[in-house]
Parts: sequence; structure tokens; C-alpha cells
Amino acid sequence: MKKMLLASTSTIYGQKYLEYLHDEIKTLFSECKKILFVPYARPSGITHLEYTEKAKDVFKTLSLEIIDYTDEDLKESLEKCDGIFIGGGNTFLLLDKLYQFSLIDILKNKINSGIPYLGTSAGTNICGITIGTTNDMPIVHVKSLEALGIIHFNINPHYLDPTVGFEHMGESRETRINEFQKLNDQVVIGLREGSFLLVNGDDIYLKGLKRAIIFKKENKNFEIESGFNLKNIM
Amino acid sequence: MKKMLLASTSTIYGQKYLEYLHDEIKTLFSECKKILFVPYARPSGITHLEYTEKAKDVFKTLSLEIIDYTDEDLKESLEKCDGIFIGGGNTFLLLDKLYQFSLIDILKNKINSGIPYLGTSAGTNICGITIGTTNDMPIVHVKSLEALGIIHFNINPHYLDPTVGFEHMGESRETRINEFQKLNDQVVIGLREGSFLLVNGDDIYLKGLKRAIIFKKENKNFEIESGFNLKNIM
Repeated sequence: MKKMLLASTSTIYGQKYLEYLHDEIKTLFSECKKILFVPYARPSGITHLEYTEKAKDVFKTLSLEIIDYTDEDLKESLEKCDGIFIGGGNTFLLLDKLYQFSLIDILKNKINSGIPYLGTSAGTNICGITIGTTNDMPIVHVKSLEALGIIHFNINPHYLDPTVGFEHMGESRETRINEFQKLNDQVVIGLREGSFLLVNGDDIYLKGLKRAIIFKKENKNFEIESGFNLKNIM
Repeated sequence: MKKMLLASTSTIYGQKYLEYLHDEIKTLFSECKKILFVPYARPSGITHLEYTEKAKDVFKTLSLEIIDYTDEDLKESLEKCDGIFIGGGNTFLLLDKLYQFSLIDILKNKINSGIPYLGTSAGTNICGITIGTTNDMPIVHVKSLEALGIIHFNINPHYLDPTVGFEHMGESRETRINEFQKLNDQVVIGLREGSFLLVNGDDIYLKGLKRAIIFKKENKNFEIESGFNLKNIM
């Protein structure tokens, strides 16, 4: 039975890294002794090691342990671990590495078999059907936009509402997602910062501080409240 | 001798489509009788026809004529035309179509041979080395990020400065471009709305309302003023 926490962002304004998710993380990983952290999204281009240390430090304060591994034994470590956390950064870079190291199927199997999974931002995005609704720059060319597809829709993390009176003429997030849906069929959830999805088996509950927006083809978009179950959304 | 106008945006706040560029466009295309408009970026997902009509209407007010063509005779029309305008929208979609219709080499040859070229937003972006610094969503998978490479650096159109006090935790444009440069060597120009590049042979002048920012590896970034020649920038 799937057990996942998929957060829009790791950090909310004015707080520390993962702070607003402490209780949820403790609950999610309560029975885990060997949590694996995947640092490949490299926010601000920091190294894998630097990023892993950052995650480790927070997990330590929650009495949770992130295991060490090298790129060489990552596959083996993934097989052995009993919890997975994939952090945010650049979604193209993250997915590219997952393809490069042939990790897609292992990850899918582990998560579908019920290993607790935490994703933030890019780590959330890759659980949808494709990464076609990422906000990130294509700083590397990824061979396919197809993602893990554990969730039956696409996710737009860090969803940002159009700002009234904003004089910038670049497309709003809403315009971009509507463009996406001219060419793609899947539903997209715009997950505002402070919100997350809690997955329990087939149930996918919206939780957290904000409402979310569901984008459907032909602009049939609507807002959902915290507590909404996205299980049957099509 | 190359003759190009590469604008950050087609439209600035409070004005009509292309309005702030009227004089420049008239000068650029003053000797053109058969201007070809490429609508493939499809802003907001509008059709090729709708987009072409929009461009035609403005050009008509400038006494300039955009020729008609179909996808089938596009290559032939490209060979025959004496001016090219590629409009904005989604950069992935635009580049994907250029690959699909095998237009990359023809476009390069035409522009390098001195056919006047106007690009706005996505139409500007594709003149750089890659589209790796686009702001757009990957609403289609493009087989390569490699672009026309007529300009010897990358372009970030609609460049937006970080906003002090902004509570959104998604990456700023600056952070994203710095991330790009951890993995890519080329210089990137952040072209603010209202600014454009005027290319005359090997000279590439910054023009328009705003300064621009030059991003170099290791955060060796600096601002340039209108009038700056980017010819020797490396």
C-alpha cells in the first residue's frame, strides 16, 4: 500500500528547511531505519554530498537516519532501504540522472510496494505522469519527459497565482498550464506552497495550508480544499 | 551580413502587440516584399492561422506584407521569402516544429545570408546556442535543446529581477540561470522586457528601454547598458 508525502516545496517563507513538515515526516518514516536520500536535483547546483548533508542534519533532529551510499552502490542501496526521500532542485537534472542510472523501475517498484516516500518540489513532480508541468529550466536535455507515473496526473509544484497589476508580460503559471493542456490530456494539480499530497494506497488527499487548483482540458479548472481526495480525478 | 532584431517580448505592459517596436520593424523590413511569419510557438495555444492573422494585422498598419503559405509549402516559401518573423509562445513547441519540418538549416542559411529577421521571445530564444535558458514549460518533448546558434550565447527573454520581500520560495530567474551555468559553459544574456538586440553583421547591440544582465560562469555576472556591443562577449 503506497505511503507518500508529496510536498509543493521543502521550505515555506520565514521557516527552516522542511520545518513545516516535521510532524508529517516523523509519522511517515516512523518505522524506517534505512532512509535513502536522492540529491540529484542539486538546488543552486550544490554537490550531491552537500545536499545529502543538509537533509541528514534535519532528519537527525527528527531522530531519523539517512544512510550513506555512493553513486556506484546506489542501486543496491535502493533495494535495501526502507524509506526514500527525493529532494527538490532542477527537475530535468533529477529525471536525467534517474534515467542515466536506470533507477526508474526500481523506484516505481519500491514506492508501489509501500516503502514510505517523501518528495519535495522536483521530488514531487517526478511522481506524476510526466515532468511537462515543471517550472524549471531545461539545464540538461533529458531523453524523455515521462516520469514515474505513480500518481495518475501531473503536478505543478510551487504553484503561483497570477498577480493582479503585475506588469511583467511573460506567461502566468495558469497560462502555461492551459497551454500544456492544449497538447496533453492529463489533469494537472497546481500545488501551492505549504500544501502537499498525502498518499495512502489509492487515496490521494490534499493537505496543508492552501487550497489547490485542478486544471482540466478546455479550462475546466476548479479549486479544491484541504482534505479533498484526488483518487477519482480524471 | 546578418540583420536581426531580437526582442525580449512582443508586447510591453499597457501597449499593443509590437507597438514599441514599430519604428524598428519598419526599418528592418524596409526593403522586404515577402515576409514570412512562423506561428509555431502558438501563445496560449492559439492556432497557426489565428496567430498569423494577428501578426499580419499589425504589419499591415506598417505597410508591410506577410505572405500566405501552408505547412506543406513552408520550405519553399522560406526559400522564396525576403524577410522572416518568428513570434513568441512556447519555445519547446516552436523548436520541436522546426525539427519536425527540417527547417533548422534553411533558417540558419537564410539569416546568415542577410535576410532580415525579427524574433520576439521564443523567436529570440531560438537564435542562441540552446533553448536551455527558456522560461517555458516543456509541453512537448523536443529531441534536442540545440537551437539555431546564430548568436554565440544563450538568451533568457522576459528576464525578471528577483523581488525583494517576495514570499514565494520557487527559484528566482537568477538562481535558475546560475544553475544552468554549473552545467553549461556559454554566456547567457538576461534580456529585460522592453530591451532587444540589434544585430548588424558581427555586431550585436543592446537596445531599448532597459539594461541587460550578462551571466557568466562562477557568478561573474554584470550589467550592460543600452548601446553595448556583445560581439566579443565570451
